[in-house]
Amino acid sequence: MTTKTQTAVVGVTGYAGAELARLLLHHPHLKGKPPVFAGRVEQKDLEHGGIALTDIHPQLGGSNGARSLKMEPFSWELLSTLGVDVLFLATPHEQSREWAPEALKHGMRVIDLSGAWRLTNAANRAVYHFDDDGTDLAIATQEKAVYGMPELHRDQILDAHLIANPGCYATSVILALKPLVDADVVDLDHGIVADSKSGVSGAGKSPTAKTHFMYAADNLSAYGVFAHRHTGEILEQIGIQSSEIVFTPHLLPIPRGILSTIYVRFKEKQTHESVLEIYRKFFIGSPLVRIFDKSLPQIQYSVRTNYADIGFQLDASGRRAVLVSCLDNLLKGAAGQAVQNMNVMLGWPESEGLE
Amino acid sequence: MTTKTQTAVVGVTGYAGAELARLLLHHPHLKGKPPVFAGRVEQKDLEHGGIALTDIHPQLGGSNGARSLKMEPFSWELLSTLGVDVLFLATPHEQSREWAPEALKHGMRVIDLSGAWRLTNAANRAVYHFDDDGTDLAIATQEKAVYGMPELHRDQILDAHLIANPGCYATSVILALKPLVDADVVDLDHGIVADSKSGVSGAGKSPTAKTHFMYAADNLSAYGVFAHRHTGEILEQIGIQSSEIVFTPHLLPIPRGILSTIYVRFKEKQTHESVLEIYRKFFIGSPLVRIFDKSLPQIQYSVRTNYADIGFQLDASGRRAVLVSCLDNLLKGAAGQAVQNMNVMLGWPESEGLE
Amino acid sequence: MTTKTQTAVVGVTGYAGAELARLLLHHPHLKGKPPVFAGRVEQKDLEHGGIALTDIHPQLGGSNGARSLKMEPFSWELLSTLGVDVLFLATPHEQSREWAPEALKHGMRVIDLSGAWRLTNAANRAVYHFDDDGTDLAIATQEKAVYGMPELHRDQILDAHLIANPGCYATSVILALKPLVDADVVDLDHGIVADSKSGVSGAGKSPTAKTHFMYAADNLSAYGVFAHRHTGEILEQIGIQSSEIVFTPHLLPIPRGILSTIYVRFKEKQTHESVLEIYRKFFIGSPLVRIFDKSLPQIQYSVRTNYADIGFQLDASGRRAVLVSCLDNLLKGAAGQAVQNMNVMLGWPESEGLE
Amino acid sequence: MTTKTQTAVVGVTGYAGAELARLLLHHPHLKGKPPVFAGRVEQKDLEHGGIALTDIHPQLGGSNGARSLKMEPFSWELLSTLGVDVLFLATPHEQSREWAPEALKHGMRVIDLSGAWRLTNAANRAVYHFDDDGTDLAIATQEKAVYGMPELHRDQILDAHLIANPGCYATSVILALKPLVDADVVDLDHGIVADSKSGVSGAGKSPTAKTHFMYAADNLSAYGVFAHRHTGEILEQIGIQSSEIVFTPHLLPIPRGILSTIYVRFKEKQTHESVLEIYRKFFIGSPLVRIFDKSLPQIQYSVRTNYADIGFQLDASGRRAVLVSCLDNLLKGAAGQAVQNMNVMLGWPESEGLE
Repeated sequence: MTTKTQTAVVGVTGYAGAELARLLLHHPHLKGKPPVFAGRVEQKDLEHGGIALTDIHPQLGGSNGARSLKMEPFSWELLSTLGVDVLFLATPHEQSREWAPEALKHGMRVIDLSGAWRLTNAANRAVYHFDDDGTDLAIATQEKAVYGMPELHRDQILDAHLIANPGCYATSVILALKPLVDADVVDLDHGIVADSKSGVSGAGKSPTAKTHFMYAADNLSAYGVFAHRHTGEILEQIGIQSSEIVFTPHLLPIPRGILSTIYVRFKEKQTHESVLEIYRKFFIGSPLVRIFDKSLPQIQYSVRTNYADIGFQLDASGRRAVLVSCLDNLLKGAAGQAVQNMNVMLGWPESEGLE
Repeated sequence: MTTKTQTAVVGVTGYAGAELARLLLHHPHLKGKPPVFAGRVEQKDLEHGGIALTDIHPQLGGSNGARSLKMEPFSWELLSTLGVDVLFLATPHEQSREWAPEALKHGMRVIDLSGAWRLTNAANRAVYHFDDDGTDLAIATQEKAVYGMPELHRDQILDAHLIANPGCYATSVILALKPLVDADVVDLDHGIVADSKSGVSGAGKSPTAKTHFMYAADNLSAYGVFAHRHTGEILEQIGIQSSEIVFTPHLLPIPRGILSTIYVRFKEKQTHESVLEIYRKFFIGSPLVRIFDKSLPQIQYSVRTNYADIGFQLDASGRRAVLVSCLDNLLKGAAGQAVQNMNVMLGWPESEGLE
Repeated sequence: MTTKTQTAVVGVTGYAGAELARLLLHHPHLKGKPPVFAGRVEQKDLEHGGIALTDIHPQLGGSNGARSLKMEPFSWELLSTLGVDVLFLATPHEQSREWAPEALKHGMRVIDLSGAWRLTNAANRAVYHFDDDGTDLAIATQEKAVYGMPELHRDQILDAHLIANPGCYATSVILALKPLVDADVVDLDHGIVADSKSGVSGAGKSPTAKTHFMYAADNLSAYGVFAHRHTGEILEQIGIQSSEIVFTPHLLPIPRGILSTIYVRFKEKQTHESVLEIYRKFFIGSPLVRIFDKSLPQIQYSVRTNYADIGFQLDASGRRAVLVSCLDNLLKGAAGQAVQNMNVMLGWPESEGLE
Repeated sequence: MTTKTQTAVVGVTGYAGAELARLLLHHPHLKGKPPVFAGRVEQKDLEHGGIALTDIHPQLGGSNGARSLKMEPFSWELLSTLGVDVLFLATPHEQSREWAPEALKHGMRVIDLSGAWRLTNAANRAVYHFDDDGTDLAIATQEKAVYGMPELHRDQILDAHLIANPGCYATSVILALKPLVDADVVDLDHGIVADSKSGVSGAGKSPTAKTHFMYAADNLSAYGVFAHRHTGEILEQIGIQSSEIVFTPHLLPIPRGILSTIYVRFKEKQTHESVLEIYRKFFIGSPLVRIFDKSLPQIQYSVRTNYADIGFQLDASGRRAVLVSCLDNLLKGAAGQAVQNMNVMLGWPESEGLE
């Protein structure tokens, strides 16, 4: 007879944290309702507690479970009392830098959805301006961190105590490119272009000029050109240099979903079948990646699912390909992948609670 | 040989103020570029001046004129120096309460787009909680104010020095109902229902939880039920009691446009022709109201125009009608009507610069 | 040990049929994959079979189950061979008029999603122009039909062999009004206004001028004024006269969801609590209706759920109320309610497979 | 005293034809209302004439001029009688192949918005499967045709009798690339990626599965990968080989607007200023191209204008650039550019009637 696992989520005031709470509510191996907390930033407003998740997230109004979840004032004591086994941090990266080591000290396993612990290369990390970079604690914590993409690091995740849950754009680009680069068919000297487009939930819950309906609706804009924070993850995980890829994100006038159109040149002529074979081999045992063998994925296929969908088309020469990679930025790109990581970490079926 | 008129706009950081600046730029009877100013609230951030209108309003980016308009630090001296004849206040109502009398004192004619001076009945004004209500200045100023709906008050507008430009919802409801109520065909005891739906620009430029793309997109919500501020205008202008109408606004997932569906019962049987005749008579000489004689207007017919579109359908008994009234909330519902008022006030053709 | 029930769906080329197939795939009391068929209209193109549901419905692409469902050429023999217990007809009403009696003859229980069998009053049916109206078979079949709204007719549904699944608009209006009319608090002489707004999926899967993105996007339009087919259902189920209600549907620029704003006058003063009490009593034992006790429902709360959400607000006099009723037109307004009916009919928990 | 020019438009049932009619209505150098005609395909339904443009195009409902335009049954005699000087063909390419030579024979100057006469290279034309390719008439007509992009071919347009108005995607890509390729700074061996995204009006007025609101809304999809018809124009006009560029179009969930994100590598290090200089030089005397010197253009800046907006960003090495090019697919990408061509052809100011 097994005891059920106790989880908790900090940062449910954001979209990813809220989706996570919703997923955990329905996960078969977990204890009833997870305790949920606002992130530190908003805590002062929330510390008298009792605010229902759906007051902040009308979009969760369909879930009676979420309607009954109320945020509580956070304390490490409360977490200890509740016997929290796995703590999810859906917090800003500065907060995760502090809280992840603290949670580890308290003996919890941590799945952090921020960019705090994803990057092993100091130069790549520079974009985050971490105050504590280089301290002993930061170095020791980073060494414990595993990049939480089960399709790449399943074995390490199993043993991990700190999982750095990948960025949404990074997930869509890495899953499409990693198999081809590993198979050594991509001409890296020639370079790769990753043109990504994301729905507005990727820009966060805070009302800003860019998340205003009037800005996003009936519009499309590129941003973060040659400068987006997810670039470092893409480089480190695929194992390529900054000069070998250009990654450009765009803001789409839709609530959720990412589509990345990726352009590669092959070292030698490939066929549709040879590329398909590379993908299929790579994703054996990966239930949450779907390879499209005939058509191309679209955003609406994967929205509200935890699937990453990958398709591709070659030109007549067999030397160039367009890869199309889609996922839901809040699920496979954030909360869903966090649950997937928990499943792997705790030895449960990888897609438990995700289908 | 006529001297061209000089205008200025305060509050171009909001949508209505920005649209107004755009319209004035192209108006044939005005001096070149109008000086434009932020509202007081934002002024401290802007006082060093020089911010281009399009930095704040990407949606105006199509207008090279607007691209070249820069906000200046406001001062009454500057306005005097420039010889401003007509001052448009696209400011919050509290600011308009202070600035309208000040501008009048400086000898300017004022067109105020806020709710500051629209209501003559103190009970109706209560919803605004004006600090200065009841002071001599406020009373004297209110007495000067003319409700700026040319289709109803053309003669008074001609002589006015202070025009209270109508609310967007109010305009859509009043224009559809006033002709029928004046013609004494509506059974007021039975009561009227006005169910209105507006695009997100009506909720203002400030990023808030309700203007976030994620809140508004793929959604519809009712708000301000039995409590919306525009109700007072509707009552006063149509000349009915609060018990005789229910007005409910809704937030539509579109950038701009209002559609009001209005339900009336007639005292006696009417025909399509008799109702059409009432509307046609009422709007003789009103170039900016279009009566639909066969079909019903839709939001997209009037968006980006200064027209109010009105259509209707009777039931078989001839005793009940559904009226449909559409307009662009930023044009006929705000900035366009303000220009229309200026045209009337200065004796120019009513639709000058608006078609 | 129970034998699982076998279902089949005709008309999966439409949105409701497709949603239904998706729901049945995951229903715990049913045999594996339901056989699915195109409606007769499209059948000639499909009769060679083998077309996957997701080829026609990209929006179902997220469901691996739906991806594996292929349409088959329809025959009654096939249905008999498969031992179909419950046949869902998501077909045009003309087809349902023919096929429902045929299915009953073959001993199946039928849940028909069209308007074919919803109306007992011949005058109300006239709007459908049924060829067979008045024939013995039609009369006998209509007598067997039960209006499939479990919240109103739970007992009759249990015994039914033919269920007429309600219209989407009708469901949203009836659920909000029936409790109040039954409690005899509504002033029917005064009349009711039901102003309803629906997403584009309600207009069907066929590409038409009105379902074109360019028509629906950034727009809102009223249609079917004083003439919508769902009016008859509303009258019959609530038990009111045509003169006592005006119902106006509108086309919203969103994929799915209905919001109805309903205006009633009470015979005598009510309080928020007295109205709440009426709703609560009426919906005891109805797990799929949620009464909002403080705020008003919005479309996004119920989209992608099988809930009908009902909220309301009274004016200061307690004599007038605005009711707001929301649901997903494809779920509680179509396929979800069909499954709910099956659950009731077969003695299963009412929300089985729906939460 | 000059005689005003007489124009006519065939194919106003489509979006581009309708926009064209609207523009011509307000053009200062043209005779009153242009006669407008349906395309041949729809003509049989329309031949009894008298259908108003706004019955087919609700989105033009804002224009009283368009409301008064009625389609007439087409005949060459009618055109001769009216003394049509310039005939716009907004027709399917097959029809333009037949009608353009016929109109030339009648002595009219022709501006054709289809792909019929854009391509001089037979291999590039193959994608259109023209029945008449290789006939004497087709060869002679093609020789007369000038590719109607004034920024590239102003002089030839002045003398032209047949103008092949460019494709929308092609315009956005060519305008951004041509200056850089002509300045010989682009490393063509390395290749160019053009990732383009277009609103739904680009997919045409016919209701199809892909223009259905349910398909396009909340979605993004790539299509025509390595196979889009506009590729040939891009190659011919820029003067590059098929192996030197990959062009991928995507369908955006917005009514109108194109954004192309274009990736180039430079032969040698460039600076922001050096690239800016190249663009500025190239577009001297081109009033309808706007170069963004600091920020990047977005779709909403150019929608409803005839501007092409071009911006760019270099990486730190100065060897790679991302170019962003935006325009309104129905204006600078179709009808607006057609009017611009007419202006150049007839010696009028290039942006007459377009600002």
